[in-house]
Amino acid sequence: MLDMNSLLIEQALLRFIRDSIHKNGFKNGILGVSGGLDSAVVLALTQKALGPDHTFALLMPYKLSSPHSREDGASLCRSLGIETETVDITPMVDAYFSRFPTDDRVAVGNMCARQRMTVLFDFSVRKQALVVGTSNKSELLIGYSTLYGDSAAAFLPIGDLYKTQVFELARHLGIPESIIAKKPSADLWEGQTDEGEFGLTYAEIDLILYQLIDLRRKPEEIAATGITAERIEQVERLIRQSQFKRTLPPVAKLQPRTVGIDFRYPRDWNR
Amino acid sequence: MLDMNSLLIEQALLRFIRDSIHKNGFKNGILGVSGGLDSAVVLALTQKALGPDHTFALLMPYKLSSPHSREDGASLCRSLGIETETVDITPMVDAYFSRFPTDDRVAVGNMCARQRMTVLFDFSVRKQALVVGTSNKSELLIGYSTLYGDSAAAFLPIGDLYKTQVFELARHLGIPESIIAKKPSADLWEGQTDEGEFGLTYAEIDLILYQLIDLRRKPEEIAATGITAERIEQVERLIRQSQFKRTLPPVAKLQPRTVGIDFRYPRDWNR
Repeated sequence: MLDMNSLLIEQALLRFIRDSIHKNGFKNGILGVSGGLDSAVVLALTQKALGPDHTFALLMPYKLSSPHSREDGASLCRSLGIETETVDITPMVDAYFSRFPTDDRVAVGNMCARQRMTVLFDFSVRKQALVVGTSNKSELLIGYSTLYGDSAAAFLPIGDLYKTQVFELARHLGIPESIIAKKPSADLWEGQTDEGEFGLTYAEIDLILYQLIDLRRKPEEIAATGITAERIEQVERLIRQSQFKRTLPPVAKLQPRTVGIDFRYPRDWNR
Repeated sequence: MLDMNSLLIEQALLRFIRDSIHKNGFKNGILGVSGGLDSAVVLALTQKALGPDHTFALLMPYKLSSPHSREDGASLCRSLGIETETVDITPMVDAYFSRFPTDDRVAVGNMCARQRMTVLFDFSVRKQALVVGTSNKSELLIGYSTLYGDSAAAFLPIGDLYKTQVFELARHLGIPESIIAKKPSADLWEGQTDEGEFGLTYAEIDLILYQLIDLRRKPEEIAATGITAERIEQVERLIRQSQFKRTLPPVAKLQPRTVGIDFRYPRDWNR
């Protein structure tokens, strides 16, 4: 399963990035670079698709962010010849939590993701660039993202690649081993890892997701391949609970054509 | 045109709000109240639908916000018996612009709208409440909103009502005249009005939108009713240019089922 031809995928994604930028009348792409795998892969793809002079990277650490990850991100930008700006989000985040303190680490993480979005979209106007998103298929499906935060973007190049496939593409693209070897982490606190949060590895999650979603297999069929029913149910629950993150806010329908219901596509208004 | 039975619409919207909150396992709604028309109407509807004890309002002024509008908002909350919290967003907004100054008033307005979103979604967790959106049909169609800012919400009760219809519903709901009489404004700077920005009144915009969208009339047919071709074209252009605000970020399709393309609805995964 999850076999992929990295060269063909790279070509398809370079075309997608170029088309998405150019058909909207832009020349430049901008993205937030954390030092993690997903943003490294999307940065390398964007640099190849648009050229280093049309790719802009923002490093947006919070005071709790890993300096090691940040240095990995900065170093990748340097080696790709990409202009960067560092915007420490700590003053913005702490301006809020100093007045409304919390012990909820997830709430702090969500605020950080949303503050990064506000900075990224402000810079996108300054740089006349579209925001290139870094969400992958695993996190879109299980909802491991902050609504209106890290998932906010003009388009999502790797949104149809599972995390395990992003690793493979990273190797193909020559992403440095220090980034590939790192345990996936939302970097919300010291020692946090995605897989520790789920209690499942990405290899397990992706194998379940791929069979459920892409192969349309029933849970019983998946269980027959040796995965426990409990784990399959856990993944199904995550998909179901995160549906609201994959839709636009529903509108109360009152008139003949309603935004998001029957007025949705350009063909709905194109003459 | 745009005739409406305010009583029936009120009943439909109260049901929509109740259903949207309860089917997601919540009891409470939260919204930002600016002192303007849209949030006043949605606040009154939410209070009726859920009760004052399950409705929570945030007042989120920026240093440039009109104190008069803010007082209108606070006074409405008091008269509806609704608990409020005031969160001045100035420290968060200025923590950014003090380092990255701008003369672009629209950029400041967008940052304010997004900072309000970050506060609203943080409070929604604290209050175990869903965020009730206040976007109306006119602004959704012409794109007069900040992406990931004021349009960010769990659902949009008045998203299918044109601004002129929201006025009518406001009268029916007994919203104070001081709020109804005010010129619609995003309150980005002193003396700003929506209609001044467009060079068109809402009465003109809504008449064009209603005929284009709900009646599916051709521009020539609308022109025959006495509206100039230039104004019709201006409104069409606004619809076209804001299409990206009414969609989720497109994903590059690589595999059988892709988020937002062919994996979109609960029926896609519900067994």
